[in-house]
This record gives sequence, C-alpha cells and structure tokens, in this order.
Amino acid sequence: MPDILHRVGALAPLDDVYRAIATPDGIAGWWTTDTTGKSEVGGQLAFRFGDVGGFDMEILELDPVGRVRWRVTDGPAEWIGTEIDWSLSRRDDYTIVLFKHEGWREPVEFMHHCSTKWATFLMSLKDFAETGRGRPAPDDVRISDWH
Amino acid sequence: MPDILHRVGALAPLDDVYRAIATPDGIAGWWTTDTTGKSEVGGQLAFRFGDVGGFDMEILELDPVGRVRWRVTDGPAEWIGTEIDWSLSRRDDYTIVLFKHEGWREPVEFMHHCSTKWATFLMSLKDFAETGRGRPAPDDVRISDWH
Repeated sequence: MPDILHRVGALAPLDDVYRAIATPDGIAGWWTTDTTGKSEVGGQLAFRFGDVGGFDMEILELDPVGRVRWRVTDGPAEWIGTEIDWSLSRRDDYTIVLFKHEGWREPVEFMHHCSTKWATFLMSLKDFAETGRGRPAPDDVRISDWH
Repeated sequence: MPDILHRVGALAPLDDVYRAIATPDGIAGWWTTDTTGKSEVGGQLAFRFGDVGGFDMEILELDPVGRVRWRVTDGPAEWIGTEIDWSLSRRDDYTIVLFKHEGWREPVEFMHHCSTKWATFLMSLKDFAETGRGRPAPDDVRISDWH
C-alpha cells in the first residue's frame, strides 16, 4: 500500500517540536486553528477546516522522546482507517521530523493532493517551531483548485 | 514499491506548464538554473546542484497534450533507475499537474526528504508558470540539514 512520506528539519528544540505535534494548542499553530481534543493516548482530536470539513483522530501513541501516532476515525472516506506517524530525532542543531501517512488503499488523485498539502503544512510546522509563527488553516498555502 | 506522489494546480495555460517541464530552459526556471540537454525523446538532461551533485535523466516521453516522462540514468544510488512521470490536464482555470516519482526500492529516509523537496519544487513550478518567477536551486527553499 502506498504511503505519504516527508522529512523536514527544524532549528528548534525537540521538546518544542514535540509539543507542536502532541497538543491541540501546538497543532493549532501550524495545521488548523480549529483544533480541539485531549492530549492523551486514547484521546480524540478534532481538526476542522471551515466549510471544507475536517478529520477526527484517535491518539495511538504519545512519547515525549519523539513519537506521536494518530488513527483517523472520521473524515473523507479515503482517510478513514489510515494512520499518521511522527518520529522526531536530533541531528546537529536540527530536530528532524520523519512523517508517514500510511494505510491508503489506492494512490488516487486525492492522495497526490494530500501529499503536497502535507508538505506545505510540515513547512508550516517548521516555521512555527522556529519562529512561533506557522501558516495554519484558514491561512494556509493554496496549492490548487482543491485548496 | 513506494512512490512519491504530488498534485498542484497552476493558474496558467497548459502549454506554458508543459514548456516549463519539457525544455531545459523551462526547468531552469523552477528546479535548478544549471539544467542542460536536448528536449527530445531519447535525449539526455543534466541537472546540477553545485557541490551537492545532480542527476542525469533520459527523456522517455514528450507529449504536448500533457505528458512527460524521465528515467534517471545517473545520480544518487537510490535514484538510478527510478522514473519521473508528469501528467497535465485542464480543470476550470487551472492546469493540474500530477507528479509521480516511482521505482524507489525502499522507503529510506532520503526518500522522505526527496518527497518534501519535490513538493517545494512543484510549488516553485506553480509560481514560475503563474508569475514567471520560481525558486530554482541555488535559490531553492531550504527544508532541513540536508538542504
């Protein structure tokens, strides 16, 4: 099954990047300002993007050493059941983020879109970790007719 | 085998986007300024990125209706033998670019990096097609310690 893979490096402490991924307040700084939920294993996160809809996810793993894992429980049909895996490590002055969105059933056109869109959100995460300012929705980077 | 997939839409005519992908002069506007070669099926393209090295590719397909395909003949070991597929179509005011870099043997960390890096170059292609100004190397967007 095809996966979406990405890697960015942020000039920021691992703890800061971890908090940006592990907590609703952190995620609101780079993915969507409308992020709610509880930061605990088994907890639910709700990500909303105005009229476009959004995603619900269950937190499967939360390890401050550098690991976060979510399972999509509601949202577009192609996303339901897929899992998103975050792995953080230090390398020189960088916190390296390895990202995987796995479990897609088919490499549909929407998956192509989501891959590019994730890249722009990971750059937003990098900016947020480095400067305190990301580009979360509704102020996110437009990449096409599909937003 | 895992693939890198992306999709962007440019508010530009399909012919302009096609030329930006099908010709060395076009590619120099968004990927690397040091692009040379001959735009014909069976022709070789050389993409260089200063000290970092670069890639040689053979053009497998060139169809102005909206298709370009390359095979990597030299460069980093992970890239050799992989193929890069461009498919263009019109949708409302957009030229949609479907991108596939396929034939990776393993989902190594370098593949994660290349996936994100391709996304930034596709955004550079979009900007180049829309405004005449992209961000080709050596002026490309830095995403990590690996550039």
